[in-house]
Amino acid sequence: MTAKNNKRQAVVLLSGGLDSTTCLAIANDMGFTCHALSFRYGQRNFVELKSAARVAKILGAETHRILDLDLRIIGGSALTDELEVPKDRTEAEMESQVPVTYVPARNTLFLSLALGLAEVVGALDIFIGVNALDYSGYPDCRPEFIKAFEEVARLGTCVGAEKGQKINIQTPLIDLTKAQIIKKGLSLGVDYGLTHTCYDPDEQGRACGRCDSCQLRLKGFAQAGIEDPVIYSS
Amino acid sequence: MTAKNNKRQAVVLLSGGLDSTTCLAIANDMGFTCHALSFRYGQRNFVELKSAARVAKILGAETHRILDLDLRIIGGSALTDELEVPKDRTEAEMESQVPVTYVPARNTLFLSLALGLAEVVGALDIFIGVNALDYSGYPDCRPEFIKAFEEVARLGTCVGAEKGQKINIQTPLIDLTKAQIIKKGLSLGVDYGLTHTCYDPDEQGRACGRCDSCQLRLKGFAQAGIEDPVIYSS
Repeated sequence: MTAKNNKRQAVVLLSGGLDSTTCLAIANDMGFTCHALSFRYGQRNFVELKSAARVAKILGAETHRILDLDLRIIGGSALTDELEVPKDRTEAEMESQVPVTYVPARNTLFLSLALGLAEVVGALDIFIGVNALDYSGYPDCRPEFIKAFEEVARLGTCVGAEKGQKINIQTPLIDLTKAQIIKKGLSLGVDYGLTHTCYDPDEQGRACGRCDSCQLRLKGFAQAGIEDPVIYSS
Repeated sequence: MTAKNNKRQAVVLLSGGLDSTTCLAIANDMGFTCHALSFRYGQRNFVELKSAARVAKILGAETHRILDLDLRIIGGSALTDELEVPKDRTEAEMESQVPVTYVPARNTLFLSLALGLAEVVGALDIFIGVNALDYSGYPDCRPEFIKAFEEVARLGTCVGAEKGQKINIQTPLIDLTKAQIIKKGLSLGVDYGLTHTCYDPDEQGRACGRCDSCQLRLKGFAQAGIEDPVIYSS
Protein backbone atom coordinates (compact mmCIF):
# COMPACT_ATOMS: atom_id res chain seq x y z
CA MET A 1 0.00 0.00 0.00
CA THR A 2 2.90 2.39 -0.57
CA ALA A 3 3.40 4.80 -3.45
CA LYS A 4 5.29 3.29 -6.36
CA ASN A 5 7.36 6.38 -7.06
CA ASN A 6 8.13 9.76 -5.55
CA LYS A 7 5.12 11.49 -7.10
CA ARG A 8 1.94 11.60 -5.08
CA GLN A 9 -0.70 9.10 -6.17
CA ALA A 10 -4.29 10.10 -6.90
CA VAL A 11 -7.43 8.20 -7.83
CA VAL A 12 -9.46 9.99 -10.52
CA LEU A 13 -13.07 9.04 -11.19
CA LEU A 14 -13.30 9.04 -14.97
CA SER A 15 -16.55 8.64 -16.87
CA GLY A 16 -15.08 9.82 -20.15
CA GLY A 17 -17.27 12.92 -20.05
CA LEU A 18 -16.22 16.53 -20.22
CA ASP A 19 -16.00 17.13 -16.47
CA SER A 20 -14.11 14.03 -15.41
CA THR A 21 -11.71 14.40 -18.34
CA THR A 22 -10.94 17.96 -17.26
CA CYS A 23 -10.45 16.68 -13.72
CA LEU A 24 -7.88 14.15 -14.90
CA ALA A 25 -6.04 16.87 -16.81
CA ILE A 26 -6.01 19.05 -13.68
CA ALA A 27 -4.74 16.20 -11.47
CA ASN A 28 -1.98 15.54 -14.01
CA ASP A 29 -1.09 19.21 -14.08
CA MET A 30 -0.89 19.25 -10.27
CA GLY A 31 1.80 16.60 -10.52
CA PHE A 32 -0.13 13.55 -9.38
CA THR A 33 0.42 10.06 -10.71
CA CYS A 34 -3.17 9.25 -11.68
CA HIS A 35 -5.10 6.02 -11.30
CA ALA A 36 -8.27 6.38 -13.34
CA LEU A 37 -11.38 4.45 -12.29
CA SER A 38 -14.45 3.90 -14.47
CA PHE A 39 -17.59 1.84 -14.01
CA ARG A 40 -19.57 -0.46 -16.25
CA TYR A 41 -22.81 -0.25 -14.28
CA GLY A 42 -25.48 -1.62 -16.58
CA GLN A 43 -25.85 1.85 -18.03
CA ARG A 44 -27.00 2.57 -21.53
CA ASN A 45 -24.24 5.06 -22.15
CA PHE A 46 -21.52 2.46 -22.61
CA VAL A 47 -20.06 4.72 -25.30
CA GLU A 48 -18.67 6.65 -22.33
CA LEU A 49 -16.36 3.77 -21.46
CA LYS A 50 -14.68 3.89 -24.86
CA SER A 51 -14.15 7.60 -24.32
CA ALA A 52 -12.81 6.94 -20.82
CA ALA A 53 -10.27 4.43 -22.14
CA ARG A 54 -9.11 6.83 -24.87
CA VAL A 55 -8.88 9.75 -22.45
CA ALA A 56 -6.95 7.74 -19.82
CA LYS A 57 -4.44 6.66 -22.45
CA ILE A 58 -3.96 10.04 -24.10
CA LEU A 59 -3.75 11.94 -20.82
CA GLY A 60 -1.19 9.41 -19.56
CA ALA A 61 -2.97 7.90 -16.55
CA GLU A 62 -0.68 5.45 -14.76
CA THR A 63 -3.48 2.86 -14.61
CA HIS A 64 -7.10 2.68 -15.79
CA ARG A 65 -9.51 0.25 -14.21
CA ILE A 66 -13.05 -0.45 -15.37
CA LEU A 67 -15.06 -1.98 -12.58
CA ASP A 68 -18.17 -4.05 -13.32
CA LEU A 69 -21.07 -3.15 -11.13
CA ASP A 70 -24.48 -4.34 -12.22
CA LEU A 71 -26.78 -1.76 -10.68
CA ARG A 72 -29.77 -3.05 -12.66
CA ILE A 73 -30.51 -5.29 -9.71
CA ILE A 74 -31.10 -2.15 -7.65
CA GLY A 75 -32.86 -0.20 -10.40
CA GLY A 76 -34.46 3.18 -10.03
CA SER A 77 -32.82 5.16 -12.83
CA ALA A 78 -33.14 5.85 -16.54
CA LEU A 79 -29.43 5.20 -16.91
CA THR A 80 -29.78 1.67 -15.61
CA ASP A 81 -33.45 0.85 -16.26
CA GLU A 82 -35.44 1.06 -19.47
CA LEU A 83 -37.08 4.37 -18.59
CA GLU A 84 -37.18 7.19 -21.14
CA VAL A 85 -34.36 9.76 -20.86
CA PRO A 86 -36.03 13.20 -20.62
CA LYS A 87 -35.32 15.55 -23.51
CA ASP A 88 -35.52 19.29 -24.09
CA ARG A 89 -36.05 20.14 -20.41
CA THR A 90 -35.90 23.81 -19.56
CA GLU A 91 -33.30 25.15 -17.14
CA ALA A 92 -36.06 25.73 -14.59
CA GLU A 93 -37.08 22.07 -14.84
CA MET A 94 -33.47 20.92 -14.46
CA GLU A 95 -33.05 23.07 -11.38
CA SER A 96 -36.27 22.12 -9.64
CA GLN A 97 -36.63 18.41 -10.33
CA VAL A 98 -34.30 15.55 -9.64
CA PRO A 99 -34.25 13.86 -13.04
CA VAL A 100 -35.09 10.20 -13.65
CA THR A 101 -31.50 9.84 -14.85
CA TYR A 102 -30.45 10.05 -11.22
CA VAL A 103 -28.60 6.88 -10.21
CA PRO A 104 -29.41 6.19 -6.54
CA ALA A 105 -26.55 7.21 -4.28
CA ARG A 106 -24.20 7.27 -7.25
CA ASN A 107 -21.47 9.58 -6.02
CA THR A 108 -21.48 7.92 -2.59
CA LEU A 109 -20.99 4.61 -4.33
CA PHE A 110 -18.35 5.80 -6.79
CA LEU A 111 -16.43 7.59 -4.03
CA SER A 112 -16.56 4.41 -1.92
CA LEU A 113 -14.95 2.42 -4.70
CA ALA A 114 -12.40 5.18 -5.31
CA LEU A 115 -11.65 5.06 -1.59
CA GLY A 116 -11.02 1.32 -1.78
CA LEU A 117 -8.63 1.88 -4.68
CA ALA A 118 -6.95 4.77 -2.85
CA GLU A 119 -6.14 2.38 0.00
CA VAL A 120 -4.66 -0.14 -2.40
CA VAL A 121 -2.50 2.25 -4.47
CA GLY A 122 -1.53 4.41 -1.50
CA ALA A 123 -3.30 7.57 -2.65
CA LEU A 124 -4.43 10.35 -0.31
CA ASP A 125 -6.26 12.25 -3.04
CA ILE A 126 -9.43 11.35 -4.91
CA PHE A 127 -10.55 13.56 -7.79
CA ILE A 128 -14.22 13.79 -8.74
CA GLY A 129 -15.65 16.15 -11.34
CA VAL A 130 -18.73 17.26 -9.43
CA ASN A 131 -20.09 20.69 -10.08
CA ALA A 132 -22.38 22.64 -7.79
CA LEU A 133 -23.51 25.13 -10.44
CA ASP A 134 -24.53 23.04 -13.43
CA TYR A 135 -25.46 20.15 -11.19
CA SER A 136 -28.72 19.20 -12.82
CA GLY A 137 -30.52 18.60 -9.53
CA TYR A 138 -28.31 15.86 -8.07
CA PRO A 139 -27.99 16.20 -4.27
CA ASP A 140 -24.62 14.44 -4.14
CA CYS A 141 -22.77 17.17 -6.04
CA ARG A 142 -22.87 19.69 -3.21
CA PRO A 143 -19.79 20.79 -1.21
CA GLU A 144 -21.38 19.74 2.10
CA PHE A 145 -21.83 16.22 0.76
CA ILE A 146 -18.16 16.08 -0.24
CA LYS A 147 -17.11 17.25 3.25
CA ALA A 148 -19.27 14.56 4.83
CA PHE A 149 -17.71 11.92 2.63
CA GLU A 150 -14.21 13.02 3.64
CA GLU A 151 -15.22 12.35 7.22
CA VAL A 152 -16.43 8.87 6.27
CA ALA A 153 -13.10 8.28 4.51
CA ARG A 154 -11.16 9.43 7.57
CA LEU A 155 -13.09 7.24 9.97
CA GLY A 156 -13.72 4.25 7.75
CA THR A 157 -10.25 3.44 6.45
CA CYS A 158 -6.67 3.06 7.58
CA VAL A 159 -5.40 5.54 4.98
CA GLY A 160 -2.86 7.98 6.36
CA ALA A 161 -3.95 7.31 9.94
CA GLU A 162 -0.45 6.43 11.15
CA LYS A 163 1.05 9.64 9.79
CA GLY A 164 -1.85 11.89 10.78
CA GLN A 165 -2.76 12.25 7.11
CA LYS A 166 -6.24 12.01 5.66
CA ILE A 167 -8.00 11.47 2.36
CA ASN A 168 -8.81 14.62 0.40
CA ILE A 169 -11.74 14.58 -1.97
CA GLN A 170 -10.55 16.99 -4.64
CA THR A 171 -13.33 18.79 -6.52
CA PRO A 172 -11.50 21.27 -8.75
CA LEU A 173 -14.62 21.95 -10.85
CA ILE A 174 -17.09 22.47 -8.02
CA ASP A 175 -17.39 26.26 -8.35
CA LEU A 176 -16.80 26.57 -12.10
CA THR A 177 -19.37 27.15 -14.82
CA LYS A 178 -19.34 24.72 -17.72
CA ALA A 179 -17.74 27.45 -19.86
CA GLN A 180 -14.97 27.90 -17.28
CA ILE A 181 -14.40 24.14 -17.12
CA ILE A 182 -14.01 23.99 -20.90
CA LYS A 183 -11.58 26.92 -20.94
CA LYS A 184 -9.56 25.35 -18.12
CA GLY A 185 -9.37 22.05 -19.99
CA LEU A 186 -8.37 23.71 -23.26
CA SER A 187 -5.61 25.62 -21.45
CA LEU A 188 -4.29 22.21 -20.34
CA GLY A 189 -4.46 20.82 -23.87
CA VAL A 190 -7.58 18.63 -23.50
CA ASP A 191 -9.12 17.47 -26.79
CA TYR A 192 -12.85 17.51 -26.00
CA GLY A 193 -13.49 15.58 -29.20
CA LEU A 194 -12.38 12.53 -27.16
CA THR A 195 -15.06 13.01 -24.53
CA HIS A 196 -18.63 11.76 -24.39
CA THR A 197 -21.41 13.41 -22.42
CA CYS A 198 -24.78 12.25 -23.77
CA TYR A 199 -27.20 10.15 -21.65
CA ASP A 200 -28.86 8.73 -24.76
CA PRO A 201 -26.55 8.34 -27.77
CA ASP A 202 -27.79 6.74 -30.99
CA GLU A 203 -26.52 3.43 -32.36
CA GLN A 204 -23.49 5.10 -33.92
CA GLY A 205 -22.64 6.58 -30.52
CA ARG A 206 -23.57 10.10 -31.60
CA ALA A 207 -24.83 12.47 -28.88
CA CYS A 208 -28.54 13.40 -28.90
CA GLY A 209 -28.02 17.09 -28.16
CA ARG A 210 -31.27 17.19 -26.17
CA CYS A 211 -30.84 15.41 -22.84
CA ASP A 212 -29.91 17.50 -19.77
CA SER A 213 -26.29 16.52 -20.08
CA CYS A 214 -26.00 17.48 -23.78
CA GLN A 215 -27.84 20.73 -23.18
CA LEU A 216 -25.51 21.77 -20.35
CA ARG A 217 -22.50 20.86 -22.45
CA LEU A 218 -23.70 22.77 -25.52
CA LYS A 219 -24.56 25.80 -23.42
CA GLY A 220 -21.06 25.68 -21.91
CA PHE A 221 -19.36 25.63 -25.31
CA ALA A 222 -21.65 28.44 -26.52
CA GLN A 223 -20.81 30.57 -23.48
CA ALA A 224 -17.11 29.87 -23.90
CA GLY A 225 -17.43 30.97 -27.52
CA ILE A 226 -15.94 27.69 -28.72
CA GLU A 227 -17.37 25.09 -31.09
CA ASP A 228 -18.01 21.66 -29.54
CA PRO A 229 -15.88 19.18 -31.53
CA VAL A 230 -18.33 16.33 -30.78
CA ILE A 231 -20.80 15.20 -33.49
CA TYR A 232 -24.51 15.41 -32.66
CA SER A 233 -27.32 13.43 -34.27
CA SER A 234 -29.82 16.30 -34.07
CA MET B 1 -40.11 5.13 -4.55
CA THR B 2 -42.96 4.69 -2.08
CA ALA B 3 -43.45 1.91 0.40
CA LYS B 4 -45.43 -1.01 -0.94
CA ASN B 5 -47.47 -1.60 2.18
CA ASN B 6 -48.14 0.02 5.52
CA LYS B 7 -45.17 -1.56 7.22
CA ARG B 8 -41.94 0.38 7.22
CA GLN B 9 -39.37 -0.82 4.71
CA ALA B 10 -35.79 -1.60 5.67
CA VAL B 11 -32.70 -2.66 3.77
CA VAL B 12 -30.68 -5.33 5.57
CA LEU B 13 -27.10 -6.09 4.58
CA LEU B 14 -26.95 -9.87 4.66
CA SER B 15 -23.73 -11.83 4.25
CA GLY B 16 -25.24 -15.05 5.53
CA GLY B 17 -23.00 -14.92 8.58
CA LEU B 18 -23.98 -14.99 12.22
CA ASP B 19 -24.11 -11.22 12.74
CA SER B 20 -26.06 -10.19 9.65
CA THR B 21 -28.51 -13.07 10.13
CA THR B 22 -29.18 -11.90 13.67
CA CYS B 23 -29.62 -8.38 12.31
CA LEU B 24 -32.27 -9.56 9.86
CA ALA B 25 -34.10 -11.38 12.67
CA ILE B 26 -34.03 -8.20 14.76
CA ALA B 27 -35.31 -6.03 11.89
CA ASN B 28 -38.12 -8.52 11.34
CA ASP B 29 -38.94 -8.49 15.02
CA MET B 30 -39.08 -4.66 14.97
CA GLY B 31 -41.83 -4.95 12.37
CA PHE B 32 -39.92 -3.93 9.25
CA THR B 33 -40.55 -5.33 5.80
CA CYS B 34 -37.02 -6.39 4.97
CA HIS B 35 -35.12 -6.13 1.70
CA ALA B 36 -31.98 -8.21 2.05
CA LEU B 37 -28.91 -7.27 0.05
CA SER B 38 -25.88 -9.51 -0.50
CA PHE B 39 -22.76 -9.17 -2.62
CA ARG B 40 -20.85 -11.48 -4.90
CA TYR B 41 -17.58 -9.59 -4.83
CA GLY B 42 -15.01 -11.97 -6.20
CA GLN B 43 -14.56 -13.31 -2.72
CA ARG B 44 -13.43 -16.80 -1.91
CA ASN B 45 -16.18 -17.31 0.64
CA PHE B 46 -18.95 -17.81 -1.90
CA VAL B 47 -20.42 -20.40 0.47
CA GLU B 48 -21.74 -17.36 2.35
CA LEU B 49 -24.11 -16.55 -0.49
CA LYS B 50 -25.83 -19.90 -0.26
CA SER B 51 -26.29 -19.27 3.44
CA ALA B 52 -27.58 -15.75 2.72
CA ALA B 53 -30.20 -17.09 0.30
CA ARG B 54 -31.35 -19.74 2.79
CA VAL B 55 -31.48 -17.25 5.64
CA ALA B 56 -33.40 -14.64 3.60
CA LYS B 57 -35.97 -17.24 2.63
CA ILE B 58 -36.41 -18.80 6.05
CA LEU B 59 -36.54 -15.48 7.89
CA GLY B 60 -39.13 -14.22 5.39
CA ALA B 61 -37.33 -11.29 3.74
CA GLU B 62 -39.62 -9.51 1.26
CA THR B 63 -36.85 -9.48 -1.35
CA HIS B 64 -33.27 -10.73 -1.55
CA ARG B 65 -30.87 -9.25 -4.07
CA ILE B 66 -27.36 -10.49 -4.81
CA LEU B 67 -25.33 -7.79 -6.45
CA ASP B 68 -22.29 -8.64 -8.54
CA LEU B 69 -19.31 -6.50 -7.77
CA ASP B 70 -15.96 -7.66 -8.98
CA LEU B 71 -13.57 -6.12 -6.49
CA ARG B 72 -10.66 -8.17 -7.79
CA ILE B 73 -9.90 -5.28 -10.12
CA ILE B 74 -9.23 -3.17 -7.04
CA GLY B 75 -7.49 -5.90 -5.05
CA GLY B 76 -5.78 -5.47 -1.73
CA SER B 77 -7.42 -8.18 0.37
CA ALA B 78 -7.14 -11.87 1.14
CA LEU B 79 -10.87 -12.22 0.56
CA THR B 80 -10.57 -11.03 -3.01
CA ASP B 81 -6.92 -11.78 -3.87
CA GLU B 82 -5.00 -14.99 -3.61
CA LEU B 83 -3.30 -14.07 -0.34
CA GLU B 84 -3.22 -16.53 2.52
CA VAL B 85 -5.98 -16.14 5.13
CA PRO B 86 -4.25 -15.85 8.51
CA LYS B 87 -4.97 -18.66 10.97
CA ASP B 88 -4.69 -19.13 14.71
CA ARG B 89 -4.08 -15.44 15.45
CA THR B 90 -4.13 -14.51 19.12
CA GLU B 91 -6.66 -12.03 20.45
CA ALA B 92 -3.85 -9.49 20.91
CA GLU B 93 -2.92 -9.84 17.24
CA MET B 94 -6.54 -9.44 16.16
CA GLU B 95 -6.87 -6.30 18.23
CA SER B 96 -3.64 -4.62 17.21
CA GLN B 97 -3.35 -5.41 13.50
CA VAL B 98 -5.74 -4.75 10.65
CA PRO B 99 -5.84 -8.20 9.05
CA VAL B 100 -5.08 -8.91 5.40
CA THR B 101 -8.69 -10.08 5.13
CA TYR B 102 -9.67 -6.41 5.28
CA VAL B 103 -11.57 -5.45 2.09
CA PRO B 104 -10.71 -1.82 1.28
CA ALA B 105 -13.51 0.53 2.33
CA ARG B 106 -15.91 -2.41 2.53
CA ASN B 107 -18.57 -1.06 4.85
CA THR B 108 -18.54 2.32 3.11
CA LEU B 109 -19.12 0.51 -0.14
CA PHE B 110 -21.79 -1.87 1.14
CA LEU B 111 -23.62 0.96 2.90
CA SER B 112 -23.52 2.99 -0.34
CA LEU B 113 -25.21 0.20 -2.22
CA ALA B 114 -27.72 -0.29 0.59
CA LEU B 115 -28.40 3.44 0.40
CA GLY B 116 -29.12 3.18 -3.33
CA LEU B 117 -31.54 0.34 -2.66
CA ALA B 118 -33.15 2.27 0.21
CA GLU B 119 -33.94 5.07 -2.22
CA VAL B 120 -35.50 2.64 -4.67
CA VAL B 121 -37.65 0.68 -2.19
CA GLY B 122 -38.53 3.73 -0.08
CA ALA B 123 -36.72 2.60 3.07
CA LEU B 124 -35.51 4.98 5.77
CA ASP B 125 -33.69 2.26 7.70
CA ILE B 126 -30.57 0.31 6.81
CA PHE B 127 -29.45 -2.54 9.07
CA ILE B 128 -25.80 -3.54 9.25
CA GLY B 129 -24.38 -6.11 11.64
CA VAL B 130 -21.25 -4.23 12.64
CA ASN B 131 -19.82 -4.81 16.04
CA ALA B 132 -17.45 -2.55 17.90
CA LEU B 133 -16.35 -5.15 20.46
CA ASP B 134 -15.45 -8.20 18.41
CA TYR B 135 -14.49 -6.06 15.46
CA SER B 136 -11.29 -7.79 14.49
CA GLY B 137 -9.44 -4.55 13.79
CA TYR B 138 -11.64 -3.10 11.03
CA PRO B 139 -11.88 0.71 11.27
CA ASP B 140 -15.29 0.86 9.58
CA CYS B 141 -17.13 -0.91 12.40
CA ARG B 142 -16.93 1.98 14.86
CA PRO B 143 -19.94 4.05 15.97
CA GLU B 144 -18.32 7.30 14.78
CA PHE B 145 -17.96 5.87 11.30
CA ILE B 146 -21.66 4.93 11.27
CA LYS B 147 -22.63 8.47 12.37
CA ALA B 148 -20.49 9.95 9.59
CA PHE B 149 -22.14 7.70 7.03
CA GLU B 150 -25.60 8.81 8.17
CA GLU B 151 -24.54 12.36 7.39
CA VAL B 152 -23.41 11.29 3.91
CA ALA B 153 -26.78 9.60 3.43
CA ARG B 154 -28.64 12.71 4.54
CA LEU B 155 -26.69 15.03 2.25
CA GLY B 156 -26.16 12.74 -0.69
CA THR B 157 -29.67 11.47 -1.39
CA CYS B 158 -33.23 12.65 -1.75
CA VAL B 159 -34.52 10.16 0.83
CA GLY B 160 -36.97 11.63 3.27
CA ALA B 161 -35.85 15.20 2.50
CA GLU B 162 -39.33 16.42 1.65
CA LYS B 163 -40.78 15.17 4.92
CA GLY B 164 -37.80 16.16 7.06
CA GLN B 165 -36.97 12.49 7.52
CA LYS B 166 -33.55 10.95 7.26
CA ILE B 167 -31.86 7.62 6.76
CA ASN B 168 -31.03 5.71 9.94
CA ILE B 169 -28.15 3.29 9.91
CA GLN B 170 -29.32 0.70 12.41
CA THR B 171 -26.56 -1.18 14.19
CA PRO B 172 -28.36 -3.31 16.76
CA LEU B 173 -25.28 -5.45 17.44
CA ILE B 174 -22.75 -2.69 17.84
CA ASP B 175 -22.39 -2.93 21.63
CA LEU B 176 -23.05 -6.63 22.03
CA THR B 177 -20.54 -9.39 22.63
CA LYS B 178 -20.65 -12.35 20.28
CA ALA B 179 -22.25 -14.39 23.09
CA GLN B 180 -24.96 -11.75 23.54
CA ILE B 181 -25.60 -11.68 19.79
CA ILE B 182 -26.05 -15.44 19.74
CA LYS B 183 -28.42 -15.36 22.72
CA LYS B 184 -30.42 -12.55 21.12
CA GLY B 185 -30.73 -14.48 17.85
CA LEU B 186 -31.74 -17.69 19.62
CA SER B 187 -34.44 -15.78 21.52
CA LEU B 188 -35.81 -14.74 18.11
CA GLY B 189 -35.72 -18.29 16.81
CA VAL B 190 -32.64 -18.04 14.56
CA ASP B 191 -31.19 -21.38 13.46
CA TYR B 192 -27.45 -20.68 13.42
CA GLY B 193 -26.90 -23.92 11.55
CA LEU B 194 -28.01 -21.93 8.47
CA THR B 195 -25.27 -19.35 8.83
CA HIS B 196 -21.73 -19.31 7.51
CA THR B 197 -18.88 -17.38 9.06
CA CYS B 198 -15.55 -18.82 7.86
CA TYR B 199 -13.15 -16.82 5.67
CA ASP B 200 -11.58 -19.97 4.31
CA PRO B 201 -13.96 -22.92 4.03
CA ASP B 202 -12.81 -26.22 2.49
CA GLU B 203 -14.16 -27.67 -0.76
CA GLN B 204 -17.19 -29.11 1.01
CA GLY B 205 -17.95 -25.64 2.41
CA ARG B 206 -16.96 -26.64 5.94
CA ALA B 207 -15.63 -23.91 8.20
CA CYS B 208 -11.89 -23.98 9.08
CA GLY B 209 -12.34 -23.12 12.75
CA ARG B 210 -9.04 -21.21 12.77
CA CYS B 211 -9.44 -17.90 10.90
CA ASP B 212 -10.28 -14.77 12.93
CA SER B 213 -13.92 -15.05 12.01
CA CYS B 214 -14.27 -18.69 13.07
CA GLN B 215 -12.34 -18.05 16.28
CA LEU B 216 -14.61 -15.17 17.27
CA ARG B 217 -17.67 -17.25 16.49
CA LEU B 218 -16.49 -20.28 18.44
CA LYS B 219 -15.53 -18.10 21.40
CA GLY B 220 -19.01 -16.55 21.29
CA PHE B 221 -20.76 -19.90 21.38
CA ALA B 222 -18.44 -21.08 24.16
CA GLN B 223 -19.17 -17.98 26.24
CA ALA B 224 -22.90 -18.36 25.60
CA GLY B 225 -22.63 -21.95 26.80
CA ILE B 226 -24.21 -23.21 23.59
CA GLU B 227 -22.89 -25.64 21.01
CA ASP B 228 -22.28 -24.21 17.53
CA PRO B 229 -24.50 -26.22 15.14
CA VAL B 230 -22.07 -25.59 12.24
CA ILE B 231 -19.68 -28.38 11.14
CA TYR B 232 -15.95 -27.62 11.26
CA SER B 233 -13.21 -29.33 9.25
CA SER B 234 -10.65 -29.12 12.07
